[in-house]
Formats: sequence, C-alpha cells, structure tokens
Amino acid sequence: MKDLRLCIMGFGAVGQGLAKVVLLKKENIKELYGVELKIVSVADSSTSAISTDGLDEEELIRVKKETGKLANYPEYGSNISGLDVLDECEYDVLLEATPTNIVDAEPARSLTLKAFEQGKDVVTSNKGHLALNFNELLDAALKNNVIFKFEASVGGTMPIINLAQETLPANNVESIVGILNGTTNYILSRMTSEGTSYENTLKESQQLGIAETDPTQDVEGIDAACKTVILANSVLGIPAKYDDVKVKGISDITSEAIYLADKEGYLIKLIAEVSKDNLEVSPRLVKKGSAFDINGTLNMATVTTDLSGKVTVRGIGAGSVETAAAMLTDLIHIIREKYKV
Amino acid sequence: MKDLRLCIMGFGAVGQGLAKVVLLKKENIKELYGVELKIVSVADSSTSAISTDGLDEEELIRVKKETGKLANYPEYGSNISGLDVLDECEYDVLLEATPTNIVDAEPARSLTLKAFEQGKDVVTSNKGHLALNFNELLDAALKNNVIFKFEASVGGTMPIINLAQETLPANNVESIVGILNGTTNYILSRMTSEGTSYENTLKESQQLGIAETDPTQDVEGIDAACKTVILANSVLGIPAKYDDVKVKGISDITSEAIYLADKEGYLIKLIAEVSKDNLEVSPRLVKKGSAFDINGTLNMATVTTDLSGKVTVRGIGAGSVETAAAMLTDLIHIIREKYKV
Repeated sequence: MKDLRLCIMGFGAVGQGLAKVVLLKKENIKELYGVELKIVSVADSSTSAISTDGLDEEELIRVKKETGKLANYPEYGSNISGLDVLDECEYDVLLEATPTNIVDAEPARSLTLKAFEQGKDVVTSNKGHLALNFNELLDAALKNNVIFKFEASVGGTMPIINLAQETLPANNVESIVGILNGTTNYILSRMTSEGTSYENTLKESQQLGIAETDPTQDVEGIDAACKTVILANSVLGIPAKYDDVKVKGISDITSEAIYLADKEGYLIKLIAEVSKDNLEVSPRLVKKGSAFDINGTLNMATVTTDLSGKVTVRGIGAGSVETAAAMLTDLIHIIREKYKV
Repeated sequence: MKDLRLCIMGFGAVGQGLAKVVLLKKENIKELYGVELKIVSVADSSTSAISTDGLDEEELIRVKKETGKLANYPEYGSNISGLDVLDECEYDVLLEATPTNIVDAEPARSLTLKAFEQGKDVVTSNKGHLALNFNELLDAALKNNVIFKFEASVGGTMPIINLAQETLPANNVESIVGILNGTTNYILSRMTSEGTSYENTLKESQQLGIAETDPTQDVEGIDAACKTVILANSVLGIPAKYDDVKVKGISDITSEAIYLADKEGYLIKLIAEVSKDNLEVSPRLVKKGSAFDINGTLNMATVTTDLSGKVTVRGIGAGSVETAAAMLTDLIHIIREKYKV
C-alpha cells in the first residue's frame, strides 16, 4: 500500500469539504487504486496543522469550527502559515483552496508556483491565479513535469473542463456558451418567478447566504468572466487574459425588463460566451424551455463541437462538498496517471 | 512516428463515419500523440479491403457507395469476410461497428472475443453483445489484458459512460434516468406539437428515415432496454441481464393521452431508469421545462451521485459521423494509455 500525502491550503468551505470527501472516499480509493490518502498538512489563513503521520479529518473540521484556528489542533497545531507550510512537511499533491483573489492572485499563485518547483502536482478550486496568470502557471507545470488540474474552478461540481478533455477529445471545441454563476442565476430566477425588484431580490439572496455581503464579483459578472478566461485557455486554446473579456453584470436589470421578456416567451440570463471571436459575459434573452432555462443556483454549458454537434451539461455550480468532489475527481486523475498500483 | 493499425468491422453508416473521422482527425492525432492512424482492414457483411500499407479513407467510402461491396476496392479488395479478416492482416485496435443483433449478438460477440484472444483492444458501437454478454466480454478483456471501450453504444455521441467514469469518478453513481432513444423521442415530440396519431407520426418518421422500416426495436423500447443493461453493468456495477429490464414501448400511446398530459403541464416521454432497485424502460409523464423536456432525436440523461448531486447531459443520440466521433474518443483513450509517444 502506497501513501499519497495531501497538503490542503485554505480551510474555508471548500477546504473543509475536502476533509469530508477524503474521509468519505479514502477506503474506496484504497480498494480501487491501492493508494492510501493521508492529509499531512492543512493551513488556514494564519495557522496550520502538520503531521507526517496524517491528520484526522473530523478533528480538523471540529477544531476549525469550534476554535476558528488550526493552531489549536491537538499536538500538531502550529503558527506556521502560507508558503512555509510547503517546506515544513513532505507531501505529494497540493490541494489549493484559498480564496479567489483577482487583484494579484495571491496567495494562490505563489503557493502553486512553489509546489511546482518542489515537483508536486496541484489541484485547485481557485479562479484568480488561473484568470490572471494562466500561461505562467501552465508553463511552470510543464517545465517541472507536474500535473495541474482545475475542474472545480469552473462550474463547481458540474464537469466542464474534464467533459471537454476526457469525453470529447475527438472533437474540436468551437464554443462554450453557458450560465456559469449560480448567484446571479438565482437572483434572475427569483425576479422572474416573484416579479420582485433587483434590489429586494439581492437582499433576500444575501439573507439566505446565496449572495455575499459584498456581491460585486457575482452581480457584476467578474466571477463568470474569470471562468470565461479559464475555459478559453484550457478548452479552446485561446491565450486570453481577463481584460479580453467584455463584461456586463445584472445590477441594472429591472423587473420591467424581465416581465416584458417573459410575455414574449423569453428569460433574461447572465450568459458567458467563449469562442475565438467573442469572449463575453452579459445578460441575454434566452428562450423558455431551451437548454438555458435553468432555475436557482444551477450552472449549465453548451459545448459546440465540430463532430459531435452540441453537448450540454448542467449541474450544481457551488457548495462545499460538491466543489471538493470536483477536486477529488482531479486527484483521481493524478492517481490513475502516476500512483495507481 | 508510430503506426496505429485499425481494423474496421462493419461498413454501414457508422463504419463509413469512422473512415470520415479518421481522415478528418489523423493529422491532429499525429501532432498531439505522435501516433499515425492507418486503416489496414475494413469488412462489410460479405467482403473486405485489406492492405498492410493502409487503405485510403475516401476510396473506401466511394467504393462502398458506388458498388456496394468492398471487394471492389482497387487492388486490395477481397472476398475474405467475418472472423477471417482478423487473421488476414496484423492490426492494433478493432473498431467494431457491425449491426446490433439482440438475438445471439453475432457477429459482434465472436469478433470481439477473437480480437481479445489476439491481444487487441476493441472499441464498439454495438449494443447486442454488450446487452446479452456483458460479463463474458469484460472477463475476456481482463483475462487478455486489453482495453474494451463502448461509449458509442449508449447515447450516440452524447457522453454518458465516459462522463461517469472520467468526469465523476469521485462519486458513487446512484441512478441514471434518461431518454436514450431518439426515434421514439422524435415520434412523441411530433405527436405533442402536431396532435397527430401514433400511426401517422410513425409513418412520417419512416418516410424521413428517422424510424426504420421495421421500427420494433425502437418503438417497443428494446433499444433503450439494451442501453439500460449496458449502463447498469458499466456505470452502476449491477450484473444485469436484458431480461431483468421491465420494458414497455410507446406503440399504445394515444394523441388523447398526450393532449391530457399537455393540459396539465406534462409531456409523455420514453424514460429509461437504471438504479439498484429498478431497471425499466417505459413511457412516463415528465414536467414541461424539466431536464427531460427535449425535442426531436436528442438524448439526455440525469446522473444522480452521492457527492455531486445531479449532473445532466444532453446531446445527439445517433448519426454516422457523430457515433463515429464517440468511437474516436474511445480510441484516443486507448492511445493516451498505451501508444502515446
């Protein structure tokens, strides 16, 4: 039995989801691939827990929930944080789940580059460093001969990058058009079904925890634009940067506009388009009953290909365990390629 | 540059689609994987064309279209057929595209088993041998240490087996519920939109070439039941046989029933369900606007998982080039695993 030593950076919703899915699936992975998953280091924003013998998944979650800091993990808690964690304990794969930062991509960018230099494979759920530094990261992974996977960064647990790369590799992907932000889709769906104003629906979404206190990244289309950049680079091979995306959010959509669209059989959705000719996030009219007619926080994407025509996928775009499941899928790809016994 | 020698058995719509996609994509595959695709033998029902130097894709299609028999392929045509073709010419991968036979699964079963014994990998679009002999085939592939792939057998070019195995491997798949037969979906969609009777709509579909002259396999649910067996075995790990599936077709659906459903916001669809507790193909009411509300010959499937919730895919369920594209995807998986330079 071979150990596969995991380092988890970032221990918010996704990081804790990772601890849960590792606990749930490690027996299964042992059976299938002959590999024993072991979490050897976990860092939150300022502290960490580190043990070469492996940390207990439930204890990690309990300590974080009850005390707020992994420093309080019995025996193995410490004040080591950030890049230093990667030097402190030998590991095989970095699971990078720090918050998305689209100003300077930190700490995700430095953590990822350092892991690559150490010869480690990386799985990430982060959008910031991918949207801002895609080529730098891919080049560094290639140079260090390591695997870099990021399914969870687009569409949460809805497969889209692996869908294109693993289920449609015979095809040339010509475009991807989809709904890639669940928060705005929830707001627009509620405005349609309830006839409420944007302001009131946003407030309601914030009370439900669906929209964040500062909703800018979602409602102004920034989150969807990051995902557009990631898909452009990874699936269509377009060397796009964040500034190449035309971005318009939903904050000036009125209930009147939604009502008028509805009367004619249309819905207003925040649509992301990824094609050679157009990188765009903007509100658009879509037909009721079409593939774009999805409710709530769901995501969807239609992939247009040369041989297989249109393939459409829909699924859950966010969530702690769900996003972690997408990261575990990426980890399984790494196991199959490098560690399987 | 390494040659990858292909043997195509069956040269109807799918076989000819294979010749087309090999022609379209061989340069691309050479660039990406360092492997040169070469069709060395192709058989129709009674003749073949065989050349160790490789056959010309366009010439194969021209000869078949114009003369009906591959025996007429210049210089390399012959009257060798069936199992003998596999002995006649050294090859690496069998692309098996003979017609589905759900009585005794031949010739697909014997061809596939012989290829396995020869140590060759096999990609198939056939449903008959999979529905009738799944375990025998999988055991034989395992015993001979070869790869056996069959994405094209379910859902045409819509990814469903690779979707589950390659994009959701972190998950336990609990059920698959979907529309897996395009012909019946076309008939039911037309009956709904036009208010026509089953008999007249079937006739119209036959005139359009969407339904076959003998439509039994489609309209009685047999085709969808075969796919149910394949998904049960390959994705859910249920050792199901064809007789385990409860099957009811659409031939007694009246326009009156469709009208009454429509009035209440429902559609009637031929639904396949694959779960531990139920293997069934039958007409069911589904809500308008739901994921099951698809028109024409499209296929769809909702995969319910333990971690990622529901993931739904829709795509084109048939077609010559489309089905061949699904087979080429399987071939690319084999290339990545065994031949990539």
